[in-house]
Amino acid sequence: MECIVSLGQASSELLIASGCRQRLAQRLEGKRAVVISDRHLQDAWGASLFTDLPWLVVPPGEESKSVERVSSLWSQMVRLGLDRQSVVVALGGGVVGDLAGFVAATYLRGVAFYSLPTSLLAMVDASVGGKVGIDLPEGKNLAGQFYPAHTVAVDPELLDTLPAKEFSQGMAEVIKHAILQGEPLWSLVRSFQPTHANDPEALCRLVTEAVLVKVEVVRQDPYEKTGLRAQLNLGHTYGHAIEWCADYSLGHGEAVALGLIADLRLSRALGTLEVDFEKDMLELLERWSLPTTLPTPLERFDWDRVAAALGRDKKNKDGQWCFVLPVRPGKVLTVNGPSVDLVRHAFSSLRPHGVLS
Amino acid sequence: MECIVSLGQASSELLIASGCRQRLAQRLEGKRAVVISDRHLQDAWGASLFTDLPWLVVPPGEESKSVERVSSLWSQMVRLGLDRQSVVVALGGGVVGDLAGFVAATYLRGVAFYSLPTSLLAMVDASVGGKVGIDLPEGKNLAGQFYPAHTVAVDPELLDTLPAKEFSQGMAEVIKHAILQGEPLWSLVRSFQPTHANDPEALCRLVTEAVLVKVEVVRQDPYEKTGLRAQLNLGHTYGHAIEWCADYSLGHGEAVALGLIADLRLSRALGTLEVDFEKDMLELLERWSLPTTLPTPLERFDWDRVAAALGRDKKNKDGQWCFVLPVRPGKVLTVNGPSVDLVRHAFSSLRPHGVLS
Repeated sequence: MECIVSLGQASSELLIASGCRQRLAQRLEGKRAVVISDRHLQDAWGASLFTDLPWLVVPPGEESKSVERVSSLWSQMVRLGLDRQSVVVALGGGVVGDLAGFVAATYLRGVAFYSLPTSLLAMVDASVGGKVGIDLPEGKNLAGQFYPAHTVAVDPELLDTLPAKEFSQGMAEVIKHAILQGEPLWSLVRSFQPTHANDPEALCRLVTEAVLVKVEVVRQDPYEKTGLRAQLNLGHTYGHAIEWCADYSLGHGEAVALGLIADLRLSRALGTLEVDFEKDMLELLERWSLPTTLPTPLERFDWDRVAAALGRDKKNKDGQWCFVLPVRPGKVLTVNGPSVDLVRHAFSSLRPHGVLS
Repeated sequence: MECIVSLGQASSELLIASGCRQRLAQRLEGKRAVVISDRHLQDAWGASLFTDLPWLVVPPGEESKSVERVSSLWSQMVRLGLDRQSVVVALGGGVVGDLAGFVAATYLRGVAFYSLPTSLLAMVDASVGGKVGIDLPEGKNLAGQFYPAHTVAVDPELLDTLPAKEFSQGMAEVIKHAILQGEPLWSLVRSFQPTHANDPEALCRLVTEAVLVKVEVVRQDPYEKTGLRAQLNLGHTYGHAIEWCADYSLGHGEAVALGLIADLRLSRALGTLEVDFEKDMLELLERWSLPTTLPTPLERFDWDRVAAALGRDKKNKDGQWCFVLPVRPGKVLTVNGPSVDLVRHAFSSLRPHGVLS
């Protein structure tokens, strides 16, 4: 399928189809362009895709989302003679997309950006909606821009080379989207088994429905002004704090999985959970080998550290913690400044034995 | 006066009035904000302006437009606890405005930016139109964004502490604007004598008319798409090359002054100069102690270096040099790919004895 995702005044073209990477490649023929990717992806796809273009390859992993890497990419692009009419193509997961998008947004005050996500997480979440950025020593994604891609091509065939563990990370975001949307995605996700990941048709359907949740939210609230887009933060307030406390040794999806559980329990404690779907959610997370308790060593998750990390969240307003909490599949609620005791208690329930730290 | 300058879908409020810095300061009362400025300006204004706000002070000079400085400012802002509702105020000339604007554009994906230009150059040119950015080792302004300020407050009283030499740098851009517009600015500039710089009313009138030239161009072509905004590059293709060859030891206005002369002579050589106003222009530049010949040592301006520098200009398209050339006061012409011999000859005319290098 194809659609146009508007992001305020700008808009992205969104292609979702098996094999659509080749259509993107055809469109770039005769254009001055550069591919930003990582080493693993170059090994996997470099021989068959964008063979006529220069590739700028960064090390895999979050460390590449640094200002030093941005600076180096800018300089390499100058040396390649890329001008304002040039195109930056991101071939990669969330890290490559965020990094390449930021470079595209800022090189010569902005050049066209084409995004070709290669991870499930990037396909259903990061590649849509124009958020690009890098990390600072003080925290993740603290520098960036809203810079919608000219074209996002979601090609599920690119998932063929994705490790199973990475696929699971993406499923955490798919499950989050299902909680946000309710039907039809909630049922679709519950019927989607790990064996279906190898069924191109089932996979394409799941990816399409999951992307469309994000598309609809972004369409209605492109710049996170009305609170709707902030709902995508479900599972992420706790999730970001967990990532930070674990020094980013957990995958993003793993942290979000834990965050979803804590959010549901916080909602229950606040009396805002109308339908208690914890059992269904835990079953889903376990199906995809996502964690349901904090990983050892637990000292990393001492409450003082967690509280400090929660205090750094970009969505906080006026110093109050802000949580998006589930009400039932298909409905969430944004809560500013819930009681610290309840926030702490919900977090502590993630400890393997539920012991308060 | 007050007006709204639209920059595509965004728009800036523009205040031009003696003393309007205080109005800006009042608006910031009760807001979380940070002032980015330089040491000289902090000495001059820190005791009377924005006394309740934190100041982040950078060294004066182009060297501060670096990625390292941006990175340091981002981190300091995180440590100050600035959130998405915070405001970045630039108090300074072009360097501070470009740097602070880029920081505002990218901190937490963009926070509100208030610009209070303190140099004539920044008042009539840099502060209007949303161009923000930093330099790379490979060249100036190669990384940046279009990020219009929420409010630009042009307060000519801030020029009181501007050294005369810096005022002259700004007059080069005023003269450029006068050539672009013709009347009324061309006559106004010709009647404006150095003694008038101390006459608040005359100064405010000149600044207002000069700013409005930029405003009108930006309004019509915010993102440099139609070629109109690119006309502001008059004097700048040669000018940027001269700056680069001199390793930025010349002021921007001095380089633009030389660029204006070379552009006029190139236009004459191409037969596109309808009204030969060289004598008037030279008289104007000399009135403001701006150079009319290249400064020694001349080896810096060997043709090979100049040609290489011309080749780096961001406005070049498809490898062809692009020049904006005067036709008469009030009319310019964009020329792509003029003969290298003529370009070289016009440049060489800037040598003190007009000797071809």
